Amino acid sequence: MSTTDNQLRVGMVGYAFMGAAHSQAWRTVNRVYDLPARARMALICGRDTGKVAEAADRLGWDAYTTDWRDLVNRDDIDVVDVCTPGDSHAEIALAALAAGKHVLCEKPLANTVEEARAMAAAAATAQAAGVRSMCGFNYRRVPAVTMMRQLVADGRLGVIRHVRAAYLQDWIVDPQFPLVWRLQKDRAGSGALGDIGAHIIDLTQYVTGQRITGVSAVTETFVKERPLPGGSSGLAATVDGSVDGQGPALGQVTVDDAAVFVARLDGGALATYEASRFATGRKNALRVEINGSLGSVVFDLERLNELEFYDATRPTAEQGFSRILVTEGDHPYMSAWWPPGHIIGYEHSFTHQMRDFIEAIATGADPAPSFADALQVQLVLDAVGRSADLGSSWTEVEPALTAVAV
Amino acid sequence: MSTTDNQLRVGMVGYAFMGAAHSQAWRTVNRVYDLPARARMALICGRDTGKVAEAADRLGWDAYTTDWRDLVNRDDIDVVDVCTPGDSHAEIALAALAAGKHVLCEKPLANTVEEARAMAAAAATAQAAGVRSMCGFNYRRVPAVTMMRQLVADGRLGVIRHVRAAYLQDWIVDPQFPLVWRLQKDRAGSGALGDIGAHIIDLTQYVTGQRITGVSAVTETFVKERPLPGGSSGLAATVDGSVDGQGPALGQVTVDDAAVFVARLDGGALATYEASRFATGRKNALRVEINGSLGSVVFDLERLNELEFYDATRPTAEQGFSRILVTEGDHPYMSAWWPPGHIIGYEHSFTHQMRDFIEAIATGADPAPSFADALQVQLVLDAVGRSADLGSSWTEVEPALTAVAV
Amino acid sequence: MSTTDNQLRVGMVGYAFMGAAHSQAWRTVNRVYDLPARARMALICGRDTGKVAEAADRLGWDAYTTDWRDLVNRDDIDVVDVCTPGDSHAEIALAALAAGKHVLCEKPLANTVEEARAMAAAAATAQAAGVRSMCGFNYRRVPAVTMMRQLVADGRLGVIRHVRAAYLQDWIVDPQFPLVWRLQKDRAGSGALGDIGAHIIDLTQYVTGQRITGVSAVTETFVKERPLPGGSSGLAATVDGSVDGQGPALGQVTVDDAAVFVARLDGGALATYEASRFATGRKNALRVEINGSLGSVVFDLERLNELEFYDATRPTAEQGFSRILVTEGDHPYMSAWWPPGHIIGYEHSFTHQMRDFIEAIATGADPAPSFADALQVQLVLDAVGRSADLGSSWTEVEPALTAVAV
Amino acid sequence: MSTTDNQLRVGMVGYAFMGAAHSQAWRTVNRVYDLPARARMALICGRDTGKVAEAADRLGWDAYTTDWRDLVNRDDIDVVDVCTPGDSHAEIALAALAAGKHVLCEKPLANTVEEARAMAAAAATAQAAGVRSMCGFNYRRVPAVTMMRQLVADGRLGVIRHVRAAYLQDWIVDPQFPLVWRLQKDRAGSGALGDIGAHIIDLTQYVTGQRITGVSAVTETFVKERPLPGGSSGLAATVDGSVDGQGPALGQVTVDDAAVFVARLDGGALATYEASRFATGRKNALRVEINGSLGSVVFDLERLNELEFYDATRPTAEQGFSRILVTEGDHPYMSAWWPPGHIIGYEHSFTHQMRDFIEAIATGADPAPSFADALQVQLVLDAVGRSADLGSSWTEVEPALTAVAV
Repeated sequence: MSTTDNQLRVGMVGYAFMGAAHSQAWRTVNRVYDLPARARMALICGRDTGKVAEAADRLGWDAYTTDWRDLVNRDDIDVVDVCTPGDSHAEIALAALAAGKHVLCEKPLANTVEEARAMAAAAATAQAAGVRSMCGFNYRRVPAVTMMRQLVADGRLGVIRHVRAAYLQDWIVDPQFPLVWRLQKDRAGSGALGDIGAHIIDLTQYVTGQRITGVSAVTETFVKERPLPGGSSGLAATVDGSVDGQGPALGQVTVDDAAVFVARLDGGALATYEASRFATGRKNALRVEINGSLGSVVFDLERLNELEFYDATRPTAEQGFSRILVTEGDHPYMSAWWPPGHIIGYEHSFTHQMRDFIEAIATGADPAPSFADALQVQLVLDAVGRSADLGSSWTEVEPALTAVAV
Repeated sequence: MSTTDNQLRVGMVGYAFMGAAHSQAWRTVNRVYDLPARARMALICGRDTGKVAEAADRLGWDAYTTDWRDLVNRDDIDVVDVCTPGDSHAEIALAALAAGKHVLCEKPLANTVEEARAMAAAAATAQAAGVRSMCGFNYRRVPAVTMMRQLVADGRLGVIRHVRAAYLQDWIVDPQFPLVWRLQKDRAGSGALGDIGAHIIDLTQYVTGQRITGVSAVTETFVKERPLPGGSSGLAATVDGSVDGQGPALGQVTVDDAAVFVARLDGGALATYEASRFATGRKNALRVEINGSLGSVVFDLERLNELEFYDATRPTAEQGFSRILVTEGDHPYMSAWWPPGHIIGYEHSFTHQMRDFIEAIATGADPAPSFADALQVQLVLDAVGRSADLGSSWTEVEPALTAVAV
Repeated sequence: MSTTDNQLRVGMVGYAFMGAAHSQAWRTVNRVYDLPARARMALICGRDTGKVAEAADRLGWDAYTTDWRDLVNRDDIDVVDVCTPGDSHAEIALAALAAGKHVLCEKPLANTVEEARAMAAAAATAQAAGVRSMCGFNYRRVPAVTMMRQLVADGRLGVIRHVRAAYLQDWIVDPQFPLVWRLQKDRAGSGALGDIGAHIIDLTQYVTGQRITGVSAVTETFVKERPLPGGSSGLAATVDGSVDGQGPALGQVTVDDAAVFVARLDGGALATYEASRFATGRKNALRVEINGSLGSVVFDLERLNELEFYDATRPTAEQGFSRILVTEGDHPYMSAWWPPGHIIGYEHSFTHQMRDFIEAIATGADPAPSFADALQVQLVLDAVGRSADLGSSWTEVEPALTAVAV
Repeated sequence: MSTTDNQLRVGMVGYAFMGAAHSQAWRTVNRVYDLPARARMALICGRDTGKVAEAADRLGWDAYTTDWRDLVNRDDIDVVDVCTPGDSHAEIALAALAAGKHVLCEKPLANTVEEARAMAAAAATAQAAGVRSMCGFNYRRVPAVTMMRQLVADGRLGVIRHVRAAYLQDWIVDPQFPLVWRLQKDRAGSGALGDIGAHIIDLTQYVTGQRITGVSAVTETFVKERPLPGGSSGLAATVDGSVDGQGPALGQVTVDDAAVFVARLDGGALATYEASRFATGRKNALRVEINGSLGSVVFDLERLNELEFYDATRPTAEQGFSRILVTEGDHPYMSAWWPPGHIIGYEHSFTHQMRDFIEAIATGADPAPSFADALQVQLVLDAVGRSADLGSSWTEVEPALTAVAV
């Protein structure tokens, strides 16, 4: 294990929304869980010196740099945490793996299948040398989601018949919301599809243990031009000031506002997926329902401490969706937190993710989701994009194996 | 108006689940609403003499017959109410229209587009002679659904972006559930698609005022063989007894257990639809969510007295989905019922339907949904079936006009 | 059994809100349930000839009268259904019992304990002669409520620790709402307490099988004067027109707007009760939660098809409140209605009540709640009133037995 | 301001459940909010050297001590955070105030009114010297609760008619749950009443801006003897091992398991309160509903990111309880957290509390709730206890002023 004094010295690239969330998790994980190694918030990297210095001070990192190449190559860094937009994931992660660093990379893994294949291949190579890598599909670590997977794995749902997944937001419903990087294809790869659609693809495959084999998709960009952006924070942003008495300059939206698709899973289930940033009133509504021959489960990220479970093996007159408050000590990840009923929040999923990543590194295990898992999600995203481009024609998801086999 | 003494003498064909529901509505409508004409439960028709006699007595019909041709041709019948399985809708309704009777026909209008076209054409012809016809998409008359339409029509949702519709049941999840008529293509036309999918197609088009223009669909029959049936009641049924010490004889399921599709509406919205009888734990879960640029609405038939409305024009900090209990006197249809908060049930949608049908007949207005409206739903069902047959390829909904124009 | 040709000829006194609800139930019960006798809507009684004639025609009664004494004494009436305000319950019911008629009397049984004692005594006497009587606490017959009782009776909740009951409405929040009879002590006996508080007292005692032994209460009349009323319908009403250019005349509100009390039950539970007509936004929110050592149940009349059941004997990680849709064929009363998930409404509780009353009469059984049961509720109401009058001092509920023993 | 280099050096006494929660808050507050001073986790105190050393290391405190007198008197401590059981609050807080330290004291302020009066008096004296003190009613800082208060203060609810408050837990339903300190009067002062009842008393008074003037109460100890405890964590605990082959030794439960009371508020509202540890299935269910003449609000701590608001000034047909997701940037405290819909948890209420306390100290303002506010809550608790002791007789809440005036 490549730690010093039982410490894992983390270097994080990026300090915006994801950077803040990861910082909170790195800061907290050692204080809540008893782990074989402790994370140290060693180094943070960003392009703007003033801003990254400010971020280091505010978020509590020991030092900062403006050069990510320096960060991935320094001897005093054990773990590289990639929190940048998707267009730089591949370059940074590949360099970090090459330098022998453990890598945690935000999702989606990359902006293209090609990049993702290269990353998965590099991760497989690095793995042989004891280097760990993981993609940041943090919602797997929401206790209710982990519990869903356990219920399926234990056979409690029987044969899965239906998957019904939607990830709905509404932060760009206003046509005057500016053209932030998430709305630009060259930065973000895709729009709602890759940003939030990727989450429900990964989550449903993780929970069911099944893979999407084919899709038929429709995507749409409802608002095709938007004002150029000024500053941003989280998902909020301001419009660039007007010039010469005219309105703000406009730019082309180059990604999807929404993507919907039907799919088949390799276990025989039918599925519907929907990712949208135009679902007025839905703020962060990742909602999944899975119906099996013996039971069903329902999850909603806006009430992430709850899981609804329908057990069709109980007496008919007593069957119903049970609202389980997933806050008991014997629920996943919860023994370290508060007494039952004292709920946790969004950021805890990152803390749980860091816990598992640290444990994997410290014990020499392979963390999940691997880069290969994330490549498979990328291949689904790719199939969705191709289906939409081809007038919704049925499109099979390309196998990941050929690339990994290289 | 073809009534005697201000009465509309109703003849109903069929006395099973729909027959019972319609009887309750005909019995109640005059007692609750003050109408320009009163329905009289004059004649009920079924094939089995003993059973139809028993039904007439129990349900409160004046007389019975075993010959639907007699019923549609008698002078003392003003209205024919068709509650049979789909394979006899066309024949009975066409004969009734030809005989100058007003016709209420259960949904889906027919088992094939050809039949539906013929029925729509006959209805258009009859209309010229003052004969009214209507298709029984009763959920339009659930007060919360009617209110949804009003909100959309009043512009409260702005531009519609998303329609999310599912009609989920679970009554055939058990592979031992018998092969009732609803699972046979020659009787029912299709499975979940025509039975419950038709409802969400009609309802969403009604509410949004928009038509589905194209679909990409997947259908599935999860359980391909089932035991032959004994008796049935409502949606429940028993298996035919075993013969010669062997298990019950099996038959082929010839309809879909589930159908899922993505669609585009002519107003620019993206839509997902799902109809399934395999959604464990969902009993009668017709759920619709519509997102517009100014607001959203959510409806669930299992809580049919409630409507959730999100008004995005309110101050940001106060926005939220309002659970409106649609039981006020100024809500659609509710002035005749109980005080606010005293909820109504499933059957009331039929009572409201009868009210509107009686009023239309008595005042010489055209009731909706017309047979032409129902034909359009049939054309969507047809497009879904063709898309599924052609490997989910994008399939445009055929226009209804050509046929009606004949 | 005092029926003719297997008919029970019903005479109903009163035709307002309760009269309409009872009519719908009498009309429906024979059509839905297979019963040993059929109700015949024979005679309706009201003071105003024009109005009662109109009511008879609209609601479907064979005949009408303006003299309740005639009604209770006629030979062709078997059952007397008392739907008048509380101040005439005793007189009519006593006369009907004396005339040998079966009596269904709306709740609360009477306006005073003295009247209630007399009625219970008369019912006990009549019972010996085969005459049945019952008080109309219709909510006992909501399937979810009946199921709650069964769960408690089966020991599924263990030892009852807490009862938490509220019946909340808001129809008189507006100070300009007129002084209808329900706000006048001489007509209604009390306000929220007797009207809706009586329901939660009966319901919780019925469900738990325990009696309230003592209370400490506070009552309040928030709005002390109101305009005199014009007409009314259901719970809605209009204000009497102004006179001589002045506002409408005002009258004194002589009943409570709200009553709250803590109580002990004879099985050791602590309880809170609240009845209010000033709970803005709550239309008909009868909500009950019962906590026992092994489980809990929750019911809300605004969602009367649902029961939440928490079973603490299940594995900890799977415990949760199960939302049971009480619409299965094996749920109480539901086999006669629609398929699962097709919900029923408020009025069905009356249909179920009539079913049980008819069955009891036809089979010679004693229906519940008896007048003695209703007297006990009256004694609790009385204790609440006395406690409130005595500055919330702890007040024991008087035993019913002494009177009944007379 | 008694800080060094813009730091507030915190010394915390106690490291169990509350100590862990406070640590998480002190650790996070500087990282999330931009504050005029930064907290430094300087010193932690506990009686057991080994355990406090372990806690200091795990929770991230610079140093530890086993002597709270040392802690409160050290020059390098600016703030004393009292997280011990109630029986030591007064002694520690008084010493800290005497030493000129700002004091944050957990709730309830003390175990007796006498202690609370002394503390409030000392706080008033210290205030004159610029020393700040605050009681830890952290739920005031749940954003939805703060928003409730704003709605009331802005007149959005009109005249308050009803307060309906319950704090329900179930962690001691099992009679074998051991006799932890929270069940011992000499340590905890009271049971459910002081532990969780205090929260709803403070919260409802805070939100309404009204004071409870009198109460009528019932308390109960359902399980009177319990096994002596072994270890504990959070609210969980183990039983002490059996001795000599016999079961574990038993001890007397000396506090209430549940307390229920009705109350009047000085603005004219009626209120019901319930605090119980025997509400099976309710884990941390602090539920408050407030009804006013113009609107209502509902809050449930198990869904602490949500507020239900009913606005009776909207058009009747659109009125409904709006489920507001209190996660927008313009909601209280939320601008520093995640994008809308990304929920926060229980512990965030402490972070918000620390933010406000730091700001008050740094800017020389008086934080709330003050020790005087907390004394008033203590006086309500005292009135409840006295009423219960006197057979539920109406008991007025003693005024706080006399003592503070000393």
